[in-house]
Amino acid sequence: MIEPDLVIRNGRLVLGDSVVQGGIAVKDGKIAAIAADAALPRVGNEIDAHGNFVLPGLIDCHVHFSRITEETEDFRSGTQAAAAGGLTTIFDMPGSDEKAVLDAVTLDDKRKEAESLAFVDFGLFGGAGKGNIAKISEMAQAGAIGFKTFMLRETSYSVDNDIQLYQVLEETARTGRPNCIHAENPDLVDYFAQRLIRAGRKDPIAHAESRPNICEVEAISRLFLLGKHSGARVHIVHMSTKEGVPILAQAKDKGQTVSAETCPQYLLLTKETMRKLGPYAKINPPLREEDDIKALWDGLSSGVVDIIASDHAPYTKEEKDLGRDDIWKAGPGNPGVETMVPLLLTKVNEGRLSIARFAEAMSTRVARLFGIYPKKGSLQVGSDADFTIVDMRKESVIEAGKLYTKSRALTLYDGWKVKGLPIMSVVRGAVVMQEGKVVGEEGYGRFVAPLTS
Amino acid sequence: MIEPDLVIRNGRLVLGDSVVQGGIAVKDGKIAAIAADAALPRVGNEIDAHGNFVLPGLIDCHVHFSRITEETEDFRSGTQAAAAGGLTTIFDMPGSDEKAVLDAVTLDDKRKEAESLAFVDFGLFGGAGKGNIAKISEMAQAGAIGFKTFMLRETSYSVDNDIQLYQVLEETARTGRPNCIHAENPDLVDYFAQRLIRAGRKDPIAHAESRPNICEVEAISRLFLLGKHSGARVHIVHMSTKEGVPILAQAKDKGQTVSAETCPQYLLLTKETMRKLGPYAKINPPLREEDDIKALWDGLSSGVVDIIASDHAPYTKEEKDLGRDDIWKAGPGNPGVETMVPLLLTKVNEGRLSIARFAEAMSTRVARLFGIYPKKGSLQVGSDADFTIVDMRKESVIEAGKLYTKSRALTLYDGWKVKGLPIMSVVRGAVVMQEGKVVGEEGYGRFVAPLTS
Amino acid sequence: MIEPDLVIRNGRLVLGDSVVQGGIAVKDGKIAAIAADAALPRVGNEIDAHGNFVLPGLIDCHVHFSRITEETEDFRSGTQAAAAGGLTTIFDMPGSDEKAVLDAVTLDDKRKEAESLAFVDFGLFGGAGKGNIAKISEMAQAGAIGFKTFMLRETSYSVDNDIQLYQVLEETARTGRPNCIHAENPDLVDYFAQRLIRAGRKDPIAHAESRPNICEVEAISRLFLLGKHSGARVHIVHMSTKEGVPILAQAKDKGQTVSAETCPQYLLLTKETMRKLGPYAKINPPLREEDDIKALWDGLSSGVVDIIASDHAPYTKEEKDLGRDDIWKAGPGNPGVETMVPLLLTKVNEGRLSIARFAEAMSTRVARLFGIYPKKGSLQVGSDADFTIVDMRKESVIEAGKLYTKSRALTLYDGWKVKGLPIMSVVRGAVVMQEGKVVGEEGYGRFVAPLTS
Amino acid sequence: MIEPDLVIRNGRLVLGDSVVQGGIAVKDGKIAAIAADAALPRVGNEIDAHGNFVLPGLIDCHVHFSRITEETEDFRSGTQAAAAGGLTTIFDMPGSDEKAVLDAVTLDDKRKEAESLAFVDFGLFGGAGKGNIAKISEMAQAGAIGFKTFMLRETSYSVDNDIQLYQVLEETARTGRPNCIHAENPDLVDYFAQRLIRAGRKDPIAHAESRPNICEVEAISRLFLLGKHSGARVHIVHMSTKEGVPILAQAKDKGQTVSAETCPQYLLLTKETMRKLGPYAKINPPLREEDDIKALWDGLSSGVVDIIASDHAPYTKEEKDLGRDDIWKAGPGNPGVETMVPLLLTKVNEGRLSIARFAEAMSTRVARLFGIYPKKGSLQVGSDADFTIVDMRKESVIEAGKLYTKSRALTLYDGWKVKGLPIMSVVRGAVVMQEGKVVGEEGYGRFVAPLTS
Repeated sequence: MIEPDLVIRNGRLVLGDSVVQGGIAVKDGKIAAIAADAALPRVGNEIDAHGNFVLPGLIDCHVHFSRITEETEDFRSGTQAAAAGGLTTIFDMPGSDEKAVLDAVTLDDKRKEAESLAFVDFGLFGGAGKGNIAKISEMAQAGAIGFKTFMLRETSYSVDNDIQLYQVLEETARTGRPNCIHAENPDLVDYFAQRLIRAGRKDPIAHAESRPNICEVEAISRLFLLGKHSGARVHIVHMSTKEGVPILAQAKDKGQTVSAETCPQYLLLTKETMRKLGPYAKINPPLREEDDIKALWDGLSSGVVDIIASDHAPYTKEEKDLGRDDIWKAGPGNPGVETMVPLLLTKVNEGRLSIARFAEAMSTRVARLFGIYPKKGSLQVGSDADFTIVDMRKESVIEAGKLYTKSRALTLYDGWKVKGLPIMSVVRGAVVMQEGKVVGEEGYGRFVAPLTS
Repeated sequence: MIEPDLVIRNGRLVLGDSVVQGGIAVKDGKIAAIAADAALPRVGNEIDAHGNFVLPGLIDCHVHFSRITEETEDFRSGTQAAAAGGLTTIFDMPGSDEKAVLDAVTLDDKRKEAESLAFVDFGLFGGAGKGNIAKISEMAQAGAIGFKTFMLRETSYSVDNDIQLYQVLEETARTGRPNCIHAENPDLVDYFAQRLIRAGRKDPIAHAESRPNICEVEAISRLFLLGKHSGARVHIVHMSTKEGVPILAQAKDKGQTVSAETCPQYLLLTKETMRKLGPYAKINPPLREEDDIKALWDGLSSGVVDIIASDHAPYTKEEKDLGRDDIWKAGPGNPGVETMVPLLLTKVNEGRLSIARFAEAMSTRVARLFGIYPKKGSLQVGSDADFTIVDMRKESVIEAGKLYTKSRALTLYDGWKVKGLPIMSVVRGAVVMQEGKVVGEEGYGRFVAPLTS
Repeated sequence: MIEPDLVIRNGRLVLGDSVVQGGIAVKDGKIAAIAADAALPRVGNEIDAHGNFVLPGLIDCHVHFSRITEETEDFRSGTQAAAAGGLTTIFDMPGSDEKAVLDAVTLDDKRKEAESLAFVDFGLFGGAGKGNIAKISEMAQAGAIGFKTFMLRETSYSVDNDIQLYQVLEETARTGRPNCIHAENPDLVDYFAQRLIRAGRKDPIAHAESRPNICEVEAISRLFLLGKHSGARVHIVHMSTKEGVPILAQAKDKGQTVSAETCPQYLLLTKETMRKLGPYAKINPPLREEDDIKALWDGLSSGVVDIIASDHAPYTKEEKDLGRDDIWKAGPGNPGVETMVPLLLTKVNEGRLSIARFAEAMSTRVARLFGIYPKKGSLQVGSDADFTIVDMRKESVIEAGKLYTKSRALTLYDGWKVKGLPIMSVVRGAVVMQEGKVVGEEGYGRFVAPLTS
Repeated sequence: MIEPDLVIRNGRLVLGDSVVQGGIAVKDGKIAAIAADAALPRVGNEIDAHGNFVLPGLIDCHVHFSRITEETEDFRSGTQAAAAGGLTTIFDMPGSDEKAVLDAVTLDDKRKEAESLAFVDFGLFGGAGKGNIAKISEMAQAGAIGFKTFMLRETSYSVDNDIQLYQVLEETARTGRPNCIHAENPDLVDYFAQRLIRAGRKDPIAHAESRPNICEVEAISRLFLLGKHSGARVHIVHMSTKEGVPILAQAKDKGQTVSAETCPQYLLLTKETMRKLGPYAKINPPLREEDDIKALWDGLSSGVVDIIASDHAPYTKEEKDLGRDDIWKAGPGNPGVETMVPLLLTKVNEGRLSIARFAEAMSTRVARLFGIYPKKGSLQVGSDADFTIVDMRKESVIEAGKLYTKSRALTLYDGWKVKGLPIMSVVRGAVVMQEGKVVGEEGYGRFVAPLTS
């Protein structure tokens, strides 16, 4: 019998919807055994989980670590924040600078750079927009975890119209990878925004009013119809509306392969936060109402809404402060990768979500949707030895100043009390975070591609 | 007691879903009494209905009499064809020439011209597109029966995008009039057509393939969502797809005010007709499949699909023959105002639709949707004395050469056997058609505006 | 032209969902003409409706005039109460005494007796229970308006089990007449009642608790399933539960011929009334909750719940007073035929129901369901000249002492303010009530049988 | 580290919907580890799975081993048949002889007898009928796996009416255990049967005609309504009708805890089999039509229909042969415990069901429904070491003469070709069947009670 490299003992292992008392033996970065404590060999490298939950390593499938400048975030700071926040894998969006991932070369370049900086494993999205339809296939070959398309016309992977949208869908359908789409009808957004601007509105709430639910709802509805006809696997990113939930449920009931994520901000904040925090709370789609929050929680709990991601979008303080007197001038988005897990565990403690469904929504189903299951997303023999250990009794207060993300000043959760903390992140058998401190190494994180590629 | 100007006796009066034996007294162009034959006074001007059904005057709410040139059709020939076809009122689309109805002045001009030519009563649609949003209100004031908007970008009342579409919906919502929309996603149509053209396809079926059901289905779905948010009363013209029926049913179930019409061509013909008749059968949306036909009949029968109209679209033979070798070159559309009623009565005789539902779909509900009920659309005291008398036992063969429409050569029904014919059309107490012969007078037809205007 | 026997002028005629200004000419007890006032001949016998609504004669399809003794009610007092209450036709239940209608002979006997006493027209139900299945057919031949079956085992037309129930359904299916069923699961009622009795409960609310919604809901559900398999036309009498409405809607959506009535008591009263009025408010099924009331009004308004009837059930004061100290000892039921119309018109005035839907629910659809349309239930040429004229502005207070019913002391509505009163009842051209006073003649009322028999 | 008692290597472990390459270490009859082959210690007692699927031990939750006489079956022969058929646990129905389980004493008696005879683990149902409602609680205390109630009035745990049914539901609700109900409306069955008997029918098909779908459908519908009101966990045994599937789905959608099983006979045979095999194919409910089969497979595949059981009902050949000339005289039921798994694996091989869903339907979900998960039903550390190893490539022919069941002569599947065989049954670490041969010991099987009791 081989000797394990690492043994974790005395855990409450979250296996699907079961919780099993025991531990895990790790060999060569993979799970070699799930066993009763007594059946685990003694090795030099042991971790006592002290009865805490051991979850399959949590995945944030929606972060923007490579937005514009290193000033706001880079893979080093971003993946440190991720590790600190209890994550073991992140998927980075294509980026919006000149290095944006729009073909195989830029994907490989970003991969190389990230491989030298990352503390946790990472997947990379390819942008899929009007300008690079012909490059979609080669990005799939190069290991893109999926594709990101903007219906809004502001990025290098946007579409201007339904011709381009349909072409993108057809082409991503051929790759079999999910097409993750920012679902807002850009015409409606423009129309409502221009009307508010003409009326002299510059206050924060004007931002929310410029993007009423119909903007997202119409977009989701159209995407599902076109997705069905084209064969594309449409994934709705950051779903924010109550109306989206039944549309999603209906499409699934009819057998269509569709999915959706929501984010902590849509589960925890309403547009009231915009009144308090102004441009810092400007996000697209905007913060909404209590009944949207309720519908999203219900949908998440029942599994209609598939997964949770942070949509971590860093900015400089200056970029946000531009919106203090004129909300239209602030950049949209907010950091979240580091605070997501404690905020959600607090809700698990409140009974809003079971620990098993939490693990599914932040690990197992994410891995399934993006084709990396069971390598990731599961406490299963043969899977990567990625674990997040959480202490559900531990309490804390989020302190912006102590965050790893460079955009720490922008967090919307400074001073929030939380109960339930990630206390250890293990990536392929190596501890990368312990008690909130990042202890991993720069460049340890590896590129993760879909298993079928 | 006043003396009636006209008495119709011995009819089977179709009153809602009842059929009553008796007759009608008319005074000053209005129904003065519905009475048992014995209770009707004897007057000089009497019509014996010989036990035939007397329907409320049938209305074709979708004709293009003023398309481009007088060569193809004008109000004289068009309303003669209408009268011959058993209709007592028609609603004319805005037209596509330089006289297109896009403001109050052009509406008034057309009204005046039509008043001098029409054999039957008529309503006029205003075009509502990107270029004349500010004129929508004045057209409503001037008596527009409703508004017509093209999602396709080929007319002077089209919209190019959802900004314009939403603006049109908002503005027509203010008028309370139905916004009748040609529902096809223009981007998808362009995309599929260009692909076929690049593949060298010029055959008739290529036209159908360029506009698959998804084009209409996505458009209907989007229109209902935007209609709900804007408050507009969306009416889908010439609905052709099986998928449209449940979308319509669902919107109605949720309490939204929406409606749809279908046309004889979508109830009787499949794309097989394109194989036989080539460019003559090129229509937008295209002819479809047997299961679309079945779903439309079922929807019509149950009342989900509200009404039937002809979408009478005249062309010169030359315009159609252009498409003999290249289907893309033919104009889309086909004449139908004159053949619609016998074709449909034949189906009534076959048991596909009750005579009462036929009368509702071609008169009562049309009048209700467009706000002219009970002036039109009902055999009710006080209503206009508009009647269509039909002989359900009479058989005939449609002969293109004998039609009143100038586009007679283009009919798709030449040689079809029919059973069930309109034998008399009465408009405000005056007989305008008898036994298929137009006996009315040019300029007798009056302008019909919504009652609430 | 014949001369009418009666002309009503200056009415607002409720014709389906239209209201037409004008009048009605009557000849030989039938409607000879619906006409504009100017088109009506002058005759000796004229009624000026003074602009009030003229409704098709209202029908109460569920009364118990022949319960046990003449002390509580008979056809004379009952039909006087009906006429006073604005009704022109009533359907009497089989009765529970030795004269109960269980075969053709007893039906004929009751018919003869009623023909000598009735002030308004009447139909007669046959009982259809375990003991007389073989007699169902002959009662249909003799003109039974429908059949009444009790699931409770307390009458001579009850069923003890599903064998008998199914046999009754099969046999009534052959007649094509509606099978009107008291839908409560007798086993559940017994079980819950016995439990309360064992617990020493004798208070009024115990009655309501002994028949929770499930008793009716299970019964309706079972009846619809067995009705579908047997081909019977199941009509649920006095539906009282919110859960019943969607079950009914679902069966109709699937194309089954089912129907239901509710009663003023289930639309106006909750079990609070039991607290106040004790045994007088003991009715089967029992008074329920506000959300039941809301669901029933919504269902009535949308047409899912078809019709309204009184379930007029007279008792002596003694029979009710027996329940003062022990609710189980009181007889179930309450008089209502005379107060129903003003109570409901008050709700029409409040906007809860349109006047047109009220007329449909109390006349047109009743007539259709029981196969006497268009003889009854319609202001149509050739129909019986039955009218109820209502003054919607007139206010009054219900005074128990002034009622015509012998059970006047038991009314639950003494002192209620109403707005909207029936001011004239006309049966086959003869005025039987004017301004609340019965002016008709004993024995004028005629037996009404289904038209198809 | 402890040394395992048994190691299974080289398997394809079916873990939820994943399949993992590796093996299992067993200690003290429980799973001590799930591990990669290389991570498993070498021990004396090893099994090479040769790459075959290792399923969590399969459970047949519906067998009648203790019907009447030892002549037809006893726990010895029955559990040998179960082991041979790939099962590791069975749940025995209460029995119909004088030893029927109707209280804690009889349950204990049966438990003791079974403990001395059983080759595999077993749970015992308590009967719950009109005669022993007061004993339900004590049977739960004594470890009854659930309760069985007959709506048919032929056993000592039947109910005669809804009072008794509701009482049983209320009382089983208190125990929290599933109430497994034979769902057929006895009145309808009696009625239809008597009619056929009166018509002289004695042929096999008459049996099917006497119990049309409505008998089961009405029963299911009523059970769910009463189950909801009483709080009972209703489990429909041997569901056979297509209509049952949507009723089940709808109840689940509304959040009610309900479940259903179907059986191989309803998934594989139609009433055509009755024509061929006469009384041997007489089963209650009866064999049905192809569209029922299709609906049940679809429901099983989607998970609406929860689980599969055999309803193994042994008879002597004489008892069945009684029905050769008169179908009414034959006993209803058929043996199936031994043939179920190969028959179903053949369908898995045909693609009708995934191996993972098969394992869920015959093990995991069974264990969950009956409260013994994760002790049974899962390949999880700490669970009982119950495994069924299946060779999906192995082909065979079912030979009645070689079956272990005493009722072998009655099998309906003699001569059927199968592909996919259970090749090893392991109960708590001990091999009880190998290559079809029972190698376990009489009296090894243990009593299984719900975990919460």
